[in-house]
Amino acid sequence: MIPRYSRPEMTRIWEPENRFRIWLEIETAAAEAMADLGLIPKEAAEAVRAKGDFDIERIDEIEAEVKHDVIAFLTSVSEHVGPEARFLHQGMTSSDVLDTCLNLQLVQAADILLADLDKLLEALKKRAYEHKNTVTVGRSHGIHAEPTTFGLKLAFAYAEFDRNKQRLEAAREEVATCAISGAVGTFAHPDPRIEVAVAKHLGLKPEPISTQVIPRDRHAAFFATLAVIAGSVERVATEIRHLQRTEVLEAEERFGSGQKGSSAMPHKRNPVLSENLTGLARLVRGYAMPALENVALWHERDISHSSVERVIGPDATIALDFALHRLTGVIDGLVVYPERMQSNMDKLGGLIHSQRVLLALTNAGVSREDAYRLVQRNAMKVWEGDADFLTELLEDPDVTGALTEEQIRAQFDLGYHTKHVDTIFERVFGA
Amino acid sequence: MIPRYSRPEMTRIWEPENRFRIWLEIETAAAEAMADLGLIPKEAAEAVRAKGDFDIERIDEIEAEVKHDVIAFLTSVSEHVGPEARFLHQGMTSSDVLDTCLNLQLVQAADILLADLDKLLEALKKRAYEHKNTVTVGRSHGIHAEPTTFGLKLAFAYAEFDRNKQRLEAAREEVATCAISGAVGTFAHPDPRIEVAVAKHLGLKPEPISTQVIPRDRHAAFFATLAVIAGSVERVATEIRHLQRTEVLEAEERFGSGQKGSSAMPHKRNPVLSENLTGLARLVRGYAMPALENVALWHERDISHSSVERVIGPDATIALDFALHRLTGVIDGLVVYPERMQSNMDKLGGLIHSQRVLLALTNAGVSREDAYRLVQRNAMKVWEGDADFLTELLEDPDVTGALTEEQIRAQFDLGYHTKHVDTIFERVFGA
Amino acid sequence: MIPRYSRPEMTRIWEPENRFRIWLEIETAAAEAMADLGLIPKEAAEAVRAKGDFDIERIDEIEAEVKHDVIAFLTSVSEHVGPEARFLHQGMTSSDVLDTCLNLQLVQAADILLADLDKLLEALKKRAYEHKNTVTVGRSHGIHAEPTTFGLKLAFAYAEFDRNKQRLEAAREEVATCAISGAVGTFAHPDPRIEVAVAKHLGLKPEPISTQVIPRDRHAAFFATLAVIAGSVERVATEIRHLQRTEVLEAEERFGSGQKGSSAMPHKRNPVLSENLTGLARLVRGYAMPALENVALWHERDISHSSVERVIGPDATIALDFALHRLTGVIDGLVVYPERMQSNMDKLGGLIHSQRVLLALTNAGVSREDAYRLVQRNAMKVWEGDADFLTELLEDPDVTGALTEEQIRAQFDLGYHTKHVDTIFERVFGA
Amino acid sequence: MIPRYSRPEMTRIWEPENRFRIWLEIETAAAEAMADLGLIPKEAAEAVRAKGDFDIERIDEIEAEVKHDVIAFLTSVSEHVGPEARFLHQGMTSSDVLDTCLNLQLVQAADILLADLDKLLEALKKRAYEHKNTVTVGRSHGIHAEPTTFGLKLAFAYAEFDRNKQRLEAAREEVATCAISGAVGTFAHPDPRIEVAVAKHLGLKPEPISTQVIPRDRHAAFFATLAVIAGSVERVATEIRHLQRTEVLEAEERFGSGQKGSSAMPHKRNPVLSENLTGLARLVRGYAMPALENVALWHERDISHSSVERVIGPDATIALDFALHRLTGVIDGLVVYPERMQSNMDKLGGLIHSQRVLLALTNAGVSREDAYRLVQRNAMKVWEGDADFLTELLEDPDVTGALTEEQIRAQFDLGYHTKHVDTIFERVFGA
Repeated sequence: MIPRYSRPEMTRIWEPENRFRIWLEIETAAAEAMADLGLIPKEAAEAVRAKGDFDIERIDEIEAEVKHDVIAFLTSVSEHVGPEARFLHQGMTSSDVLDTCLNLQLVQAADILLADLDKLLEALKKRAYEHKNTVTVGRSHGIHAEPTTFGLKLAFAYAEFDRNKQRLEAAREEVATCAISGAVGTFAHPDPRIEVAVAKHLGLKPEPISTQVIPRDRHAAFFATLAVIAGSVERVATEIRHLQRTEVLEAEERFGSGQKGSSAMPHKRNPVLSENLTGLARLVRGYAMPALENVALWHERDISHSSVERVIGPDATIALDFALHRLTGVIDGLVVYPERMQSNMDKLGGLIHSQRVLLALTNAGVSREDAYRLVQRNAMKVWEGDADFLTELLEDPDVTGALTEEQIRAQFDLGYHTKHVDTIFERVFGA
Repeated sequence: MIPRYSRPEMTRIWEPENRFRIWLEIETAAAEAMADLGLIPKEAAEAVRAKGDFDIERIDEIEAEVKHDVIAFLTSVSEHVGPEARFLHQGMTSSDVLDTCLNLQLVQAADILLADLDKLLEALKKRAYEHKNTVTVGRSHGIHAEPTTFGLKLAFAYAEFDRNKQRLEAAREEVATCAISGAVGTFAHPDPRIEVAVAKHLGLKPEPISTQVIPRDRHAAFFATLAVIAGSVERVATEIRHLQRTEVLEAEERFGSGQKGSSAMPHKRNPVLSENLTGLARLVRGYAMPALENVALWHERDISHSSVERVIGPDATIALDFALHRLTGVIDGLVVYPERMQSNMDKLGGLIHSQRVLLALTNAGVSREDAYRLVQRNAMKVWEGDADFLTELLEDPDVTGALTEEQIRAQFDLGYHTKHVDTIFERVFGA
Repeated sequence: MIPRYSRPEMTRIWEPENRFRIWLEIETAAAEAMADLGLIPKEAAEAVRAKGDFDIERIDEIEAEVKHDVIAFLTSVSEHVGPEARFLHQGMTSSDVLDTCLNLQLVQAADILLADLDKLLEALKKRAYEHKNTVTVGRSHGIHAEPTTFGLKLAFAYAEFDRNKQRLEAAREEVATCAISGAVGTFAHPDPRIEVAVAKHLGLKPEPISTQVIPRDRHAAFFATLAVIAGSVERVATEIRHLQRTEVLEAEERFGSGQKGSSAMPHKRNPVLSENLTGLARLVRGYAMPALENVALWHERDISHSSVERVIGPDATIALDFALHRLTGVIDGLVVYPERMQSNMDKLGGLIHSQRVLLALTNAGVSREDAYRLVQRNAMKVWEGDADFLTELLEDPDVTGALTEEQIRAQFDLGYHTKHVDTIFERVFGA
Repeated sequence: MIPRYSRPEMTRIWEPENRFRIWLEIETAAAEAMADLGLIPKEAAEAVRAKGDFDIERIDEIEAEVKHDVIAFLTSVSEHVGPEARFLHQGMTSSDVLDTCLNLQLVQAADILLADLDKLLEALKKRAYEHKNTVTVGRSHGIHAEPTTFGLKLAFAYAEFDRNKQRLEAAREEVATCAISGAVGTFAHPDPRIEVAVAKHLGLKPEPISTQVIPRDRHAAFFATLAVIAGSVERVATEIRHLQRTEVLEAEERFGSGQKGSSAMPHKRNPVLSENLTGLARLVRGYAMPALENVALWHERDISHSSVERVIGPDATIALDFALHRLTGVIDGLVVYPERMQSNMDKLGGLIHSQRVLLALTNAGVSREDAYRLVQRNAMKVWEGDADFLTELLEDPDVTGALTEEQIRAQFDLGYHTKHVDTIFERVFGA
């Protein structure tokens, strides 16, 4: 991922240093397990633990010759450890190291993403409570529908990201496995107990059955989950882009004092962060496709998945980390305009109360069909002109024939729409 | 989905009859809940329960005029129920009905898919035990690696589909929600207790917070899960296609007696079912993309998701149901050729034992680097000519200087590779 | 594709009747070519031409037994033609018939889509000229930028769909090929001249080299082109959805007199057609993925592409045909509100002229940096309050120090922005 | 893109140096055009041309403050040019610079990819002629079908990549446009003649109508084309992976002398380059999706496309450049085993001639149905056992009743299958 969309903590996971560090830990833990089982000398395992290290430049140098990264790594390690290093990697295959390492990296990445989600949830909750009762119009199809509150909008986002957290926890579990099962996964060379010991040491579960590779349906499920989360990022970003548009302007991204919205038009304050998030969501979604195609490896394994994962492993997690962090900042800094929400709501001349009038008419004994026609007839006058809905209704004898003026006026009360906000907040945030 | 890839039970879920039946159940249950809360007359709810019905042709007729399916449906119902029908749908929106219905259909579809998975798992388990000890060569990169058993191949598929079952159960939970929250989801008109009651009646959970629509991250997660499962179908199908190819022919799809493999070449027996499954997997994978794009609806709701779901709701579930059923048939009927597995394994002149020789040399004190070069040197002679690996080793003084003939011969024992099959089977299938 | 999104002319292409009719034409043309080359008796070809026919039910019946559609078809034809039918399909393979037929169907589908595009272009052009000088605000990032005209918006769409027409013509060329090359494509059995003759007869080009199948990169390019076109449909649909939203309401879809926008809220007039188009675009985009995966068939051919094409062949073309037709109707019927465009444009208190003031200041010798700060300073007052931009500028001594009042007022002239509309229209629509 | 899959020439296109160099060229050419039109002083344009330069670190520094890259760039340029720099960018917007630059970068990238394709085509042609008459079995469904030649396999790939070259040339044309149309694309500020002049200077065409941004359907078509090409890479890579598998081994990737196929199994020679290409193809395919989603920008423009393009612009072109280069190397170095091709072809005991026998029987007056059954009956004996097809036929009285021994033996001639190789080569490579 390009530096522009990369944060150091996540990037570090995917750097050679971390990868080789994990490899060394896997090899060392495996050596210790072998020593415990009496398969290699205790001294060898101790030497590896004590002196085990590597040199990245040296690895690159060797790999250029042998064209095999794990062999290059082992050679570098043996140059630090000495002759005891020959007991390393006994009966193991490269995949044992590579796949267990990838899974550990994905677990590390998931942990950062989970922390990102926690911060985002916190921001959403804080702003949701702040605007719990800030009345604003709810829109369906982009058209004013009925009143809601801005807090409910944020509570909705909270609930969605809370589900995403659960999904990501499940996805983390999916990839939190370790395989030390040797060539084609039969444990012919490495004793299965080594896998159990290494898994425990790394905080992973043993992969019940692997075929040299850890099965890629796990990774497909992982990256598909990131794609779902990206969709939620896009949903919130799209909402903010809508709210900031000139004609709506109910909320906007915080605008820095030195900031320039446009090189040509000095008046512009654009929702560029949210637009950026929309694009990042497309990227993360796109990364799910090759991950899904990676499942069908040939026979016990082929290595077609590798180039895909070398790229989307970092790219998808780094981009999503960046996006979640950016979204949290946008939510934290979101400037909200309650007065504008009120004045926008008034724009439809009271039409947002059409359903209430419909129900009142029905309750007064008018058939649903007739009531609908009656309300729509008056509503369309308001829609097409500058009329006021309440006025029109009070002047329509068919309406006043069924409802008193007091009854009609009662349908225009905003409190009616917010009476269950507490209930919903309890459902979302708990008591 | 085209009839060719459709099975009646799954197709039925998506037919108008089932959809309207569910709508009626939702409206009726909602009316009963309203009556229990004293919001509408008990008699109205009873009339709906007793006389509630609909007429599909009549609905189509009305919809052609009003261009609104739920209104058309309600009109048809009211023609069966009479004037009490005016209490139906009070304060509800179309989405309350449509979204709860879609979720119930997806739950019904998931239940069929879960049953499909059970049958597939059963078939895989049966064949896995049958071939638990059928030795065959394991292949990495399409190249012979080391021996494994055909039972292990099937056990691997079993474990993968077992994970898929768990994923599908989680995906089913994702969409097993009900929303009766009214316009923009505020419960302004429908009391929240109605939602709770209807959810319970339908075996669903109330959606904690909806915005007229049930949030589409749930459906994205659902269809992404189907895509992951499709990947696993492709994996097994690809394996079978490989095994049936002329040069391998270790297994093949059952070939009917009247069947013709090719109109032009009467000798052909092609793995057409597995190839077909590969294509179906591509389709199901493709359906996940629009579902992921559906998450970011505008404001409280827009209806762009609807056309997508009208198509992929049926298409993805019907295609996957068909694929799982077909795959189960392929596994059940798979003709396995153990002798061919043995003769193929012999093809590399013993090279599949190269790692064992490498380890034996290392254990005898040869450095890993030297041992590798020694083994590779002899292996390449076999690879490139018609030499036999054992013979070459026995004639190489550097090898015989480190190992006795007996030690060398011991590395060619197949039992070495199958000694942990029981352990793995226990892990996969339980004790 | 579901009937809701299917139009009969396109659907007919994908029905068995048309498919078998094409097969018969291919087989008959091939027989005539063989007869011309003296490979089969003239009488046989004549008999096929005269009596050639098929019975769909009979084909289904035979296929159920032999599990091979082309053999079933040939058997049915032979039941109409008599013994001369044995000369049919000589040396050909099923793929010769199936692939040539698929390509002909895609060409037929492309011709309908090209006609759809012509109608859409016509509608766009008509409305573009109608609103050539209807001034409206141009928006970047959803924020008012500078004036443009509604005609330019439509001209932009015209230019985009004109490019799509060229792309579709190229895509049609891609698939307008015919292969009669026999098993694995060597022409061992069918003389290459038969292919040339059949291709000519069907209005196709001979496929220069096929391997029993026509190469699938052609079809990938075809479906990818449909996906690009779908993106353009989405772009226009998104624009209309934006224009119809309550706060903007500069244009809206034609609303039928009996139509109901919402079952619960009688005041709603929703852009449901454009939302529907957005969803259809997602579907068509999704269909491109399996087409792209279809390219890498195994060896000379495998049949994994077939299930994909049986589904997306009809689904992608039918959905796009429906979408283009619907979009044409939306454009034709679009209700445009020029007064609202004007009043929206006035909303930013003249800020849309900020760039002109910036340029005027620069031309008057103020440094770009200073000019920017000067304009932004006044603009932000307007943005945040109810101030008027012109008033603020006239009261800012730094501004009036550089520009006279007349100069300042001159920057607020709308005509400045529309002076090149004719030039652009000429570029798009020709002189 | 990670360095592992990056080649310097393509990477350079996407580095800041090249981007800013192009920006400077655009601004300078625009200034010169403005001077020619008398809009700015000649001296200003000359000063920019003479002294125009930038400092990347300085740009980064300024951008950190103003959060706008083009403004930061212009400030840096003005620090080199002096006060005349204030005439730069007059009436232009950032998009004029950014979009024209992106298109020029894509054109540069396309030129490298076209050169890559030329080299690949050359390699394919050379190897195709080398093996024009190397007989090998053609396979459908992975099953032996009928003989073909290895040259035809390569000629098929040649024809496919030749189409890809034409597609890429068209895609290059798609993005070879320049826009200097100012805010919302009306040319209100920049005279249209500036765009024409800059386009000519850069070797691009003026974009007929832009809306501040160059329309993204062009880029969608571009990246979709890369995805199609990636599919072709995957097709050839898949073929090689099949050919190298142990049981087939008709060809293999060149294996370096110091290379290690497996850290654990010294005998392995794996088709790792081709597997790698398969994964890279998945990546490039995945990048097409966000590009397709980028088409539907909001109103005249939003900036959601930008993050996508900052990533996939480099990633897709770099990965495809690497893949094409790698594939060329694989083809160049491919080790081909004609003897193995022959011995594999013999494996089916002559069954690959089944169609010829079928045709001979039909020509001898046996009905097609009877002939098919006759051939299939004998073929299945060979398929299931160790029988030889010719022997079986000669012993079947129904066969010998229709054909003489000489006639039967004549159907087993390989020359029959290669007689049109010249014709096909002429079609593919020209006379």
